[in-house]
Amino acid sequence: MALPTLRIIGFIIGIFLITLAVSMVIPMLTLLVFEHPEDLNAFLWSSMITLIIGLLLVVPGRPENLKLRPRDMYLLTTCSWLVVCLFAAMPMMLLHHISFTDAFFETMSGVTTTGSTVLSGLDDASPALLIWRSMLQWLGGIGFIAMAVAILPLLRVGGMRLFQTESSDWGEKVMPRSHVVAKYILGIYLLFTVLGAIAYRLAGMDWFDAINHAMTSISTAGYSTSDASLANFSNATHWVAVVMMILGSLPFTLYVASARGNRRALLRDQQVRGFLLMLGATCLLFSLWLWANSDYAWLDALRLVSVNVVSVVTTTGYAVGDYTLWGGFAVMAFFYLTFVGGCSGSTSGGLKMFRFQVAYRLLRGGLQQLVHPRAVIFQKYNGHPLDEEIVRSILTFSFFFTITIGAIALGLALLGLDPITALTGAATAVCNVGPGLGPVIGPAGHFSSLPDAAKWLLSIGMLLGRLEIITVLVLITPGFWRH
Amino acid sequence: MALPTLRIIGFIIGIFLITLAVSMVIPMLTLLVFEHPEDLNAFLWSSMITLIIGLLLVVPGRPENLKLRPRDMYLLTTCSWLVVCLFAAMPMMLLHHISFTDAFFETMSGVTTTGSTVLSGLDDASPALLIWRSMLQWLGGIGFIAMAVAILPLLRVGGMRLFQTESSDWGEKVMPRSHVVAKYILGIYLLFTVLGAIAYRLAGMDWFDAINHAMTSISTAGYSTSDASLANFSNATHWVAVVMMILGSLPFTLYVASARGNRRALLRDQQVRGFLLMLGATCLLFSLWLWANSDYAWLDALRLVSVNVVSVVTTTGYAVGDYTLWGGFAVMAFFYLTFVGGCSGSTSGGLKMFRFQVAYRLLRGGLQQLVHPRAVIFQKYNGHPLDEEIVRSILTFSFFFTITIGAIALGLALLGLDPITALTGAATAVCNVGPGLGPVIGPAGHFSSLPDAAKWLLSIGMLLGRLEIITVLVLITPGFWRH
Repeated sequence: MALPTLRIIGFIIGIFLITLAVSMVIPMLTLLVFEHPEDLNAFLWSSMITLIIGLLLVVPGRPENLKLRPRDMYLLTTCSWLVVCLFAAMPMMLLHHISFTDAFFETMSGVTTTGSTVLSGLDDASPALLIWRSMLQWLGGIGFIAMAVAILPLLRVGGMRLFQTESSDWGEKVMPRSHVVAKYILGIYLLFTVLGAIAYRLAGMDWFDAINHAMTSISTAGYSTSDASLANFSNATHWVAVVMMILGSLPFTLYVASARGNRRALLRDQQVRGFLLMLGATCLLFSLWLWANSDYAWLDALRLVSVNVVSVVTTTGYAVGDYTLWGGFAVMAFFYLTFVGGCSGSTSGGLKMFRFQVAYRLLRGGLQQLVHPRAVIFQKYNGHPLDEEIVRSILTFSFFFTITIGAIALGLALLGLDPITALTGAATAVCNVGPGLGPVIGPAGHFSSLPDAAKWLLSIGMLLGRLEIITVLVLITPGFWRH
Repeated sequence: MALPTLRIIGFIIGIFLITLAVSMVIPMLTLLVFEHPEDLNAFLWSSMITLIIGLLLVVPGRPENLKLRPRDMYLLTTCSWLVVCLFAAMPMMLLHHISFTDAFFETMSGVTTTGSTVLSGLDDASPALLIWRSMLQWLGGIGFIAMAVAILPLLRVGGMRLFQTESSDWGEKVMPRSHVVAKYILGIYLLFTVLGAIAYRLAGMDWFDAINHAMTSISTAGYSTSDASLANFSNATHWVAVVMMILGSLPFTLYVASARGNRRALLRDQQVRGFLLMLGATCLLFSLWLWANSDYAWLDALRLVSVNVVSVVTTTGYAVGDYTLWGGFAVMAFFYLTFVGGCSGSTSGGLKMFRFQVAYRLLRGGLQQLVHPRAVIFQKYNGHPLDEEIVRSILTFSFFFTITIGAIALGLALLGLDPITALTGAATAVCNVGPGLGPVIGPAGHFSSLPDAAKWLLSIGMLLGRLEIITVLVLITPGFWRH
């Protein structure tokens, strides 16, 4: 890696740090509104330190006439998320007097929009802490969309090349320049957040809770302002959450296309249609099962199933009640749903819908090929041919995904965790969902009792999952560091 | 499906039934030797009925000048195993007065060399029942080798085309005709069984136990003559079992090549080398862990780990003690090992070594491709190029494998089984291993307490796993039944 390249990477990370330092103003304002000035110092110090380091990286300027190659992007991406996490953890340590491990875990869980928490007593926590957690998730969410739209397709990671945008995908004839798309996406993200906050307010939350939940819903992230998560709020808020989480897990580029006049962009998209169909069918069938196997009224069963299923599938991770008490079938179903994820180009994690759809096409094609060995079967997805590169990259991604979860689970078991906690902990981290299963880290538990080494392992899992695994793994191949 | 094709399929199944009827003579002779003539009737009736049906299918003769196409093989394969199971279950029902479900489960578990059992009180059971269970596994084992060598590569199922044999693979210059290979394989299988029986006898078993265990070891199947499985016998027998199970899980075509003069065929094979290396490393590291985390002496730890790890990896399924008592890490490790399997062309099930090795090459190649996007990376395995067809078929197989286990586990959970029993039961059935995990079906439990529907679901899983899943799934595609 040449020095000028490292200087560009440092410059960009510096910009991120300055943004982070500036955004710490919002928790400070919150403290002033809520008249808790005694907590101000934590954010003042953190903001100043972050700002100084950021300026030190930015002031020397960036080398001109030098562009980053795709392979430099891998290093940039991984380093940015790590460095941002380190600095964003500072106010948590200073404010809540938790260990560095806990602060880093909580921050990583926030920034990767996972939503697993080591904190309890949220209902009485400092409003600055609560809004900071929500902001980390909100910033992480928009950061991931930017990465999924602008960087991952270039990197040919995990079949994301399927989503390289072409001019025909957009409403107008000319493909908009990337900074126009970025502005649109940011605008839509902001708009949804504002609308979500209003909806939560109308559904019965106070403004503070409504703003926090709007931020953590649209980013499909899942931090709440209450230990009981959404169970602490009215039934109407659960339905607002369902809508918001679904909005957050659809491809944001398609919102842009819709806004620019291609009105049917969303409904014509195979991934969106498949995702909504799958989600609707799952909620309906699962509700019928719960209704038949419990004392819940039909509407309660539908609401509880919908909010929890949508929460897990979109990798948000709010919990409304302890669904593991619904029995073995429910536990199994939620375990599977952990892996699904939303659509590509959204804020959600997991395997993501398009990979299931491509896999389904390949499986169907594979069976057809066996029956007609000499037939030439040509397959498409959303108008893109499924060529060998796409097939291989989805294969590679799925295997690495499985291996990563398996390895982290084995590591957690070696640290003494029981098999269910180890397996579902690894899965929920890598899929960026939030709660696991079992008594320790299930929807009714939390992650604070785990040993420190387990928290680090899970933090690595969250980062790997958020960066589509391969983006990070490339960095540890020997070839990467050679010329 | 044309009528003449069905007549050929019927003819071949008829031959299998006649073979089955004749093989029932051996339990009858066993009864005479052990002077239990009261049990003779069960086998006499079963043998006569099987013989008559077999003859009815064979006597009309087979249509001449007609060959089976590859797609007819799918139907032939699935039907043969199913029909053989139905008839082989008869003596169990008549002899042990168990339900049809239990008899079918036990037979399917035997013929597919899985080794899960619903029977208890084996130590006092009729010797005819014991030898019949062992014979089912022994016949299932050789039947599967024949299928893996002769049929699966033709069917292009799951990447097995990698193992289409070429003349250079054999010791002599000319590739032997298939019936010569078949004779060699049968001879080697018999030889290993005889040597195994002698070794077990020398290690302290009586001749009856030795013969039974030799049959269920070489077929990597795992039925025992005692409820306590191998724990009932001397430590020396455990080491005999380790060697026998490994012999049963190496490719039998390579034994033939060795016997025909290509002395280094086994040691030069990448699959065999990778398998032995993986097994050695796993046993060693796992023994060290057990030794450090328990009161066992080093040699006991090595023996207990080796026999149980080799038993699970080779998909045999003997248990020596309850390894789930070793703690969460051991449970997790045995869960993973359930999926591994032995080499292709052996009697073992599971994913099989070569798929892991091919996947490893693809993953390495995928990462290299990301670092050097314009490089052309050409990959080989055991001298065969990994072309797109191989990649796609291994992808297809892995996905169907995962989906099958997932679907069966979900079905079991719907029937009321707890998640661990459901998940490990599905995995152990589809991988043809034997014991699951948890208190119900773990190494210390057995399958008799499961509801009938669960036993049928598991039986389907065993059959799917044994026939490499896709061989069966092709039959339910609409395209298969057109024309």
